[in-house]
Amino acid sequence: MYKNTLRKAAHTWKRIIKLRLSEQEASMLRFYVDELAFTDLHWGMFIPAIKGQGMEQRQQKWLPLAYKMQLIRCYAQTELGHGSNVQGLETTATFDPKSDEFIMNSPTLTSSKWWPGGLGKASTHGVVYARRLVDGKDHGVNGFIVQLQSFDDHSPLPGITVADIGMKFGNGAYNTMDNGVLRFDHVRIPRDQMLMRVSQVTREGKYVQSDVPRQLFYGTMVYVRQTIVANASCASSRAVCIATRYSAVRRQFGSQDDGPETQVIDYKTQQNKLFPLVVTAYAYRFVGEWLKWLYTDVTQRLQANDFSTLPEAHACTAGLKSLTTSTTADAIEECRKLCSGHGYLCSSGLPELFVVYVPACTYEGDNVVLLLQVARFLMKTVSQLGSGKQLVGTTACMGRVEHLLQCCSDVQQAEDWLKPTAILEAFEARAARMSVAYARNISKMPSQEEGFAELFSDVVETAVAHCQLIVVSKFIEKLKQGIPGKGVKEQLQILCNIYALFLLHKHQGEFLATGAITLKQASLASDQLRVLYAQACPNAIALVDAFNYTDHYLGSVLGRYDGNVYPNLYPKAWEEPLNDTVVPDGYHEYIRPMLKQQLRTVRL
Amino acid sequence: MYKNTLRKAAHTWKRIIKLRLSEQEASMLRFYVDELAFTDLHWGMFIPAIKGQGMEQRQQKWLPLAYKMQLIRCYAQTELGHGSNVQGLETTATFDPKSDEFIMNSPTLTSSKWWPGGLGKASTHGVVYARRLVDGKDHGVNGFIVQLQSFDDHSPLPGITVADIGMKFGNGAYNTMDNGVLRFDHVRIPRDQMLMRVSQVTREGKYVQSDVPRQLFYGTMVYVRQTIVANASCASSRAVCIATRYSAVRRQFGSQDDGPETQVIDYKTQQNKLFPLVVTAYAYRFVGEWLKWLYTDVTQRLQANDFSTLPEAHACTAGLKSLTTSTTADAIEECRKLCSGHGYLCSSGLPELFVVYVPACTYEGDNVVLLLQVARFLMKTVSQLGSGKQLVGTTACMGRVEHLLQCCSDVQQAEDWLKPTAILEAFEARAARMSVAYARNISKMPSQEEGFAELFSDVVETAVAHCQLIVVSKFIEKLKQGIPGKGVKEQLQILCNIYALFLLHKHQGEFLATGAITLKQASLASDQLRVLYAQACPNAIALVDAFNYTDHYLGSVLGRYDGNVYPNLYPKAWEEPLNDTVVPDGYHEYIRPMLKQQLRTVRL
Ligand SMILES: Cc1cc2nc3c(=O)[nH]c(=O)nc-3n(C[C@H](O)[C@H](O)[C@H](O)COP(=O)(O)OP(=O)(O)OC[C@H]3O[C@@H](n4cnc5c(N)ncnc54)[C@H](O)[C@@H]3O)c2cc1C
Ligand SMILES: Cc1cc2nc3c(=O)[nH]c(=O)nc-3n(C[C@H](O)[C@H](O)[C@H](O)COP(=O)(O)OP(=O)(O)OC[C@H]3O[C@@H](n4cnc5c(N)ncnc54)[C@H](O)[C@@H]3O)c2cc1C
Ligand SMILES: [Ca+2]
Repeated sequence: MYKNTLRKAAHTWKRIIKLRLSEQEASMLRFYVDELAFTDLHWGMFIPAIKGQGMEQRQQKWLPLAYKMQLIRCYAQTELGHGSNVQGLETTATFDPKSDEFIMNSPTLTSSKWWPGGLGKASTHGVVYARRLVDGKDHGVNGFIVQLQSFDDHSPLPGITVADIGMKFGNGAYNTMDNGVLRFDHVRIPRDQMLMRVSQVTREGKYVQSDVPRQLFYGTMVYVRQTIVANASCASSRAVCIATRYSAVRRQFGSQDDGPETQVIDYKTQQNKLFPLVVTAYAYRFVGEWLKWLYTDVTQRLQANDFSTLPEAHACTAGLKSLTTSTTADAIEECRKLCSGHGYLCSSGLPELFVVYVPACTYEGDNVVLLLQVARFLMKTVSQLGSGKQLVGTTACMGRVEHLLQCCSDVQQAEDWLKPTAILEAFEARAARMSVAYARNISKMPSQEEGFAELFSDVVETAVAHCQLIVVSKFIEKLKQGIPGKGVKEQLQILCNIYALFLLHKHQGEFLATGAITLKQASLASDQLRVLYAQACPNAIALVDAFNYTDHYLGSVLGRYDGNVYPNLYPKAWEEPLNDTVVPDGYHEYIRPMLKQQLRTVRL
Repeated sequence: MYKNTLRKAAHTWKRIIKLRLSEQEASMLRFYVDELAFTDLHWGMFIPAIKGQGMEQRQQKWLPLAYKMQLIRCYAQTELGHGSNVQGLETTATFDPKSDEFIMNSPTLTSSKWWPGGLGKASTHGVVYARRLVDGKDHGVNGFIVQLQSFDDHSPLPGITVADIGMKFGNGAYNTMDNGVLRFDHVRIPRDQMLMRVSQVTREGKYVQSDVPRQLFYGTMVYVRQTIVANASCASSRAVCIATRYSAVRRQFGSQDDGPETQVIDYKTQQNKLFPLVVTAYAYRFVGEWLKWLYTDVTQRLQANDFSTLPEAHACTAGLKSLTTSTTADAIEECRKLCSGHGYLCSSGLPELFVVYVPACTYEGDNVVLLLQVARFLMKTVSQLGSGKQLVGTTACMGRVEHLLQCCSDVQQAEDWLKPTAILEAFEARAARMSVAYARNISKMPSQEEGFAELFSDVVETAVAHCQLIVVSKFIEKLKQGIPGKGVKEQLQILCNIYALFLLHKHQGEFLATGAITLKQASLASDQLRVLYAQACPNAIALVDAFNYTDHYLGSVLGRYDGNVYPNLYPKAWEEPLNDTVVPDGYHEYIRPMLKQQLRTVRL
């Protein structure tokens, strides 16, 4: 399997150079190949890392090589003992002024690098994160470019142990990727292979903080997480496309007068589970587009040395990464269950889609840890209310906090819930009230840290509420723009309302508990939601066809565009290697003696 | 892999006969082998089916052979086109009075049997469900014992096509099981191989309903679903055991004065996700024990021709099957995520535990379809209120419906939520009010069927509320019994309260919307829950150690009893076949040409 992945990666790269594709076109091509490979990390993480943290000088040396694939790299941060806590990494890089080198070392078992994709077998180089020990002092963790394998024969360089970490979830998924383990035994590298944009070590062994602010790291993070949100929309739209099409093909029960049975998509229970997922795929696409804009905005500001929006941008991308990946992982599995038995077959495409997707909840920040960052940011925002500090970006609505703490929703009948203003106000009121309430509770505790630790999980709910508000408001903003295509805007309006009211129903408890809406209004929202589902139903197939996936890309017998599920599922069975022989291997050794009651005498 | 499974199954059987194990001991042994095999269906479904539906006479012929494993059987019900709707199966069994035989046939592609475990390769016989066509009339679906493979050389008998259906989710899991496809081309079997307990076809070709009531089927279902609930408790306790132990080993952040970092189990977010799952594993164990009692009770009543409790028993086991399997599947995946990165390694044991478990949401009744049955039963119960019909079993509390619709919880401070009466009343009020409200809404619709279809998904929520009430009340009942062991009862009391208050918080919206509790009371419940988590924390490890799993059985490096995670995780990597060579297979063909920029000239 791994060899086959290598073949595909080489093929892709050959195409890229042959057709002289641009960076963006190349990334499209890799998208369509749709199999994880070491090259993903090379493009997705390694290059952005050098771009963000290297110096101009460094970039001039490494980037062209990387772009031409003359070296293959991985992003080697996580260790056996440390993932989330990057500052706790144990790999050391000790500066030796005599030779002008850093000595890379793995002092403990838990300091072994563990997980980096592409590290196990393919990479020639890695960006390795290690603690800088300079003149006996610990200057914290930084990236280093380290050559790992020889250019001659691809064997590990002296002092380096490298291997694959072994079987992961699924039978395909990340098993096509050589996530690796790496240990250093006093490996020397030239000083200038430290990434020195943010701080430098001089020839004389002096540690110098550069005037480039640390926040620059955040720029890279915003970039990477923005792509993760875009991927969430992509993965969820694939899953809902499969489940929706199959739900229209599958019929079960309800035949009248020997007519055909009911399409399962016509059952309200199926709709109630499926439609919110379809709608969420759209919502995530729009919030992803907005994040792309945000990244451009942040980059431009950084270039102009304006860091004012960075903390907010950082918190909101962290939160959206967490929200979108968690819900997308669940959505894929829910889609699989909505296909019931046949969804459990690999040929449905859903099992591997799930397995390959689900680590997005873990890498680039464990989702819970990320929500805690958002929560901290929100608590800080609340504590600064009234201090005159300007509220930017997604927290701007907190400027109206007085209003939001007191307002009563003016929804009086179900249709009132179709008004964007009504929806926005309810979501803003819920989020603001939760933030203020928890900030108040925390302030009652002996210390802020203690309070935060004690109320951890409640503030996490606040962070989720804030992120949902962002997604809802960006969906609403999107609809204010001109949208081409006849009737498209009306359809999207329905989707937007479903998204909001579905969330409102799901988190009814919070809306009620904060008094953002009344019991009566909650019940009206459920009524309106039911009406909206009925409106969306006739267009369900069109909505998922609009994602425009080819059958080849979807890779699902259940999700075929032509709906020819059964005639294609049946012959698939015969591709199973067990069917190469009629009588299974092992019959004579095991089955026959059992049937013939001869087990006692047989050696097994 | 499949061959290895055959080997283990033969081994297990050899042990069983050698040691002359009883039926119960044998089932324990198969439990510890803990790998799916064709034999599971043989014991779990085939034998109960003949026991339940065969005639005495039949049983005398088939059961001893089955018990001695002189034939291997599968339970062949599901077809390509029909799973949930058993009455829609298309395989036909046409009676031919001339030869006193049934002719088994697969008239359409969708009539192909599809999914039966053990069918693909191992089974010699199957209980095949088919429509009986007798004298031109369709008498509905019934089971037939059909020989599939020859005893001589295990090749399919004439007219029979049988094969494995191919790759399923996961790399192990159900891939050790030969789920199969089966087609009949006019295969003749003797008349007496129809299972005839409930109805018969005479020599003359007369269809006769026996006086044994159809409800007998339900008895078998109660049995099978009862074992599924017991398995849910087993699977969830395995998962929480792994995640809890690893959470105590894993440290991340929070180091003070260079001391060790914080154990992640001490983070409230981790506790908030983990502890409810631990507690649920206990709750399911107790409700499982109760279901076992229920099955015995039902069986005794059946023998005495008392069918009065059967509908209620059937509904409540259906609901509990659905509730426990859905939440257990989610719990396993949640546990995996709580182990973050390392949970994604197969050596964590969690990926395969999830994959092998998750079809329990689908087989023996799709979980949504089952909830609809419960909902129908509840709506019927409500409609009969006041008619004098006796309310039995878990619906008995509906006898106090007047009270439950009006009562106000008397909880005034957080500790009041520790009182079993307060908890019970809140859960009963919520369930009863939801049932009554939806029954009323349905009755407003033009027809009951339409109303039911329209409000489908809301009544499903009602069914869940009812099932949660059952689990909570059985937990409380359990605690009324004497429980041996010093301090054990006090611990279980904490778990019971956590379970109830966790559910109450999670479904806060419903408790508030029905007015079962007030806003203030909801907030007190959350406060009390926080206190309970803190009380449970010091005993977390003891609580999962109490499940008493050996390391071998757990099969998880992260869940080791001795906590030696890292020294065992590290060497595991070297078992990966990719590590057999230092330079990966494919280097010369693909990696090297890419690095040396020679791709243009290379043929891939
Ligand atoms: C498929 C895959 C690919 C990967 N690729 C790469 C790669 O290319 N390069 C690389 O360097 N790494 C890679 N990783 C590693 C990944 O980045 C880490 O797994 C991730 O950062 C999470 O860290 P962890 O696993 O140490 O989790 P931990 O931090 O150990 O988390 C364990 C549990 O503790 C909780 N927790 C931790 N800290 C706190 C806190 N402060 N408060 C509350 N709760 C807390 C978490 O929520 C979680 O439930 C990959 C991982 C996977 C699964
Ligand atoms: C691992 C595994 C092992 C199995 N082993 C066996 C075996 O040994 N023998 C055997 O005979 N079968 C076996 N099965 C098949 C299993 O019993 C069926 O998959 C199951 O009964 C569900 O039926 P289905 O797949 O046809 O789902 P469907 O009924 O097609 O369900 C599809 C969707 O429609 C919805 N739906 C269906 N009807 C309704 C309704 N009336 N109202 C609302 N929604 C509805 C469902 O909720 C679901 O979301 C196995 C399946 C698996 C996955
Ligand atoms: Ca797998």
